[in-house]
Amino acid sequence: MTAFAWRHNIPMRILFYADNTKVQPWVDGLREAIPRAHVEHWLPGAAPADYAVVWAPPQHLLDEQPQLKAIFNIGAGVDALLQRRLSPSTLLVRLDDAGMSVQMAEYVCHAVIRHFRELDAYEREVAAGKWSFRKPRLRSDFPVGVMGLGVLGERVAKAVAHFEFPVVGWSRTPKTIEGIRCFAGPGEMDAFLAATRILVCLVPLTPETENILNGDTLSKLRPGGYLINVARGAHLVDADLLALLDSGHLAGATLDVFRTEPLPAGHPFWNHPKVNVTPHTSARTLREETIAQIAGKIAALAREEPIAGVVDRERGY
Amino acid sequence: MTAFAWRHNIPMRILFYADNTKVQPWVDGLREAIPRAHVEHWLPGAAPADYAVVWAPPQHLLDEQPQLKAIFNIGAGVDALLQRRLSPSTLLVRLDDAGMSVQMAEYVCHAVIRHFRELDAYEREVAAGKWSFRKPRLRSDFPVGVMGLGVLGERVAKAVAHFEFPVVGWSRTPKTIEGIRCFAGPGEMDAFLAATRILVCLVPLTPETENILNGDTLSKLRPGGYLINVARGAHLVDADLLALLDSGHLAGATLDVFRTEPLPAGHPFWNHPKVNVTPHTSARTLREETIAQIAGKIAALAREEPIAGVVDRERGY
Repeated sequence: MTAFAWRHNIPMRILFYADNTKVQPWVDGLREAIPRAHVEHWLPGAAPADYAVVWAPPQHLLDEQPQLKAIFNIGAGVDALLQRRLSPSTLLVRLDDAGMSVQMAEYVCHAVIRHFRELDAYEREVAAGKWSFRKPRLRSDFPVGVMGLGVLGERVAKAVAHFEFPVVGWSRTPKTIEGIRCFAGPGEMDAFLAATRILVCLVPLTPETENILNGDTLSKLRPGGYLINVARGAHLVDADLLALLDSGHLAGATLDVFRTEPLPAGHPFWNHPKVNVTPHTSARTLREETIAQIAGKIAALAREEPIAGVVDRERGY
Repeated sequence: MTAFAWRHNIPMRILFYADNTKVQPWVDGLREAIPRAHVEHWLPGAAPADYAVVWAPPQHLLDEQPQLKAIFNIGAGVDALLQRRLSPSTLLVRLDDAGMSVQMAEYVCHAVIRHFRELDAYEREVAAGKWSFRKPRLRSDFPVGVMGLGVLGERVAKAVAHFEFPVVGWSRTPKTIEGIRCFAGPGEMDAFLAATRILVCLVPLTPETENILNGDTLSKLRPGGYLINVARGAHLVDADLLALLDSGHLAGATLDVFRTEPLPAGHPFWNHPKVNVTPHTSARTLREETIAQIAGKIAALAREEPIAGVVDRERGY
């Protein structure tokens, strides 16, 4: 139907919904990128549309538009969308990179370097007026393990390897990445954790991966382990991390995502001396790149060509 | 003479001197790496030696050993050694990398990412219990300029480019580095500065480069410029940097090296809100790597083969 409309110059209809960002720049950007389309803010009672571009739309809006050919998510993780009931005929499409993987590589490399080079400690000492000396640590003592080797995970693993850290990776299905020792599946998780000192979590959030960062898995990291969670807060059992930090098995953590966001006032992560908190800023959606990618995918769908990033609802990502 | 001694199994004599590190591990390491050599701590009255391995030896020791075939410096910069009177027949050899360039790449990338991603600001806000949001900045607005494209500078430039920043470089003589726009010589310095927002100083300290980071050059950086000095403190005119930070033309600086080290108590850099100070920790000499490199070069000299890293005393590096 959409291909028909496109070919016959019947205006394509696109709806935009997001509750965490300004709507107008997105609507304007989509209009500019797809001049033949009618683009509007998705409100109750909208006329039936061909496509929707969204972040976490409410169920009642989705229920009104079962004919949607595709829903484009403007973030990398589709876990919020998969909690909704969706029409079986609607394609669910995740964002592929669009400037996110380089941001993720930056954020993770910054956290790895800051921990390995003890830059937090130097900073505290300098703030106290102290010119200090610390014995350099050996890179070989700080193997980095990347859990999840999708677009983001692979980019992060390669960026860390660029700084000559030993790097291992784990994914649900086997992967091959040059220079990275790759483990796969539940059967190789323990070996992956035992080979890891700095753990980077980048798996999608699914029923299987919820709470995957728990006392059992985190205690299998090498002594002095360090956690960097840049995936979803629901991957982590907060109390288990705190216990392992207190026992000294883990040296610290950098956390960008939380079970409840914003992180609630009074949560122990806010002021924990071994925890660095950032407000979900590791990889932000960049509007221009995202609109360009979605416009390209809509054009491909209109030509009845396959597109990348279609979510497998069974698998959950 | 040394080649003669080596061939005829007359023990080679090596002296070690450094005033800023423990001597015994170096002496032991050199003995282990070059079993045929007699290695000792360089004290006044030592028997004439073939080679010396040093950091900043005093003039009176150098005066006693004019016959030295080569002096190996255990840091990347030879500016301290070149302030001494040295026998014209003695080769002066700098350290080539030996694990330093990856450390420098780490340190500079950490500083670039921390500034670009405003991680200092997020950290302050988190410390105050605030979950904040900042509009993502555009990478294209933050071109990084690397001044000095030797082993360290080239490695740093490539590491920064890996994160998709625009990167330009400047060196005394023309260089070609893939992906980096290279400027050369005094005539192209202004164009280099005008193309730079984050300036990384990695030139050797020579009479021509002393005070090269001054009010004139730093004011030619793009507005909102940022300085990362990881070369020598004497490259920077401290007061000029402070004036440009106060005027707002420069947004900040990360400084690892200072005109006097340790940085004197009361120096305005210690507590300046726009200056990040570290205690000369950007790239530290790694003993094992350094000893292995020097042992290899001594073996090459004994075979009368050429070696890398011989300092051109006229040029100053």
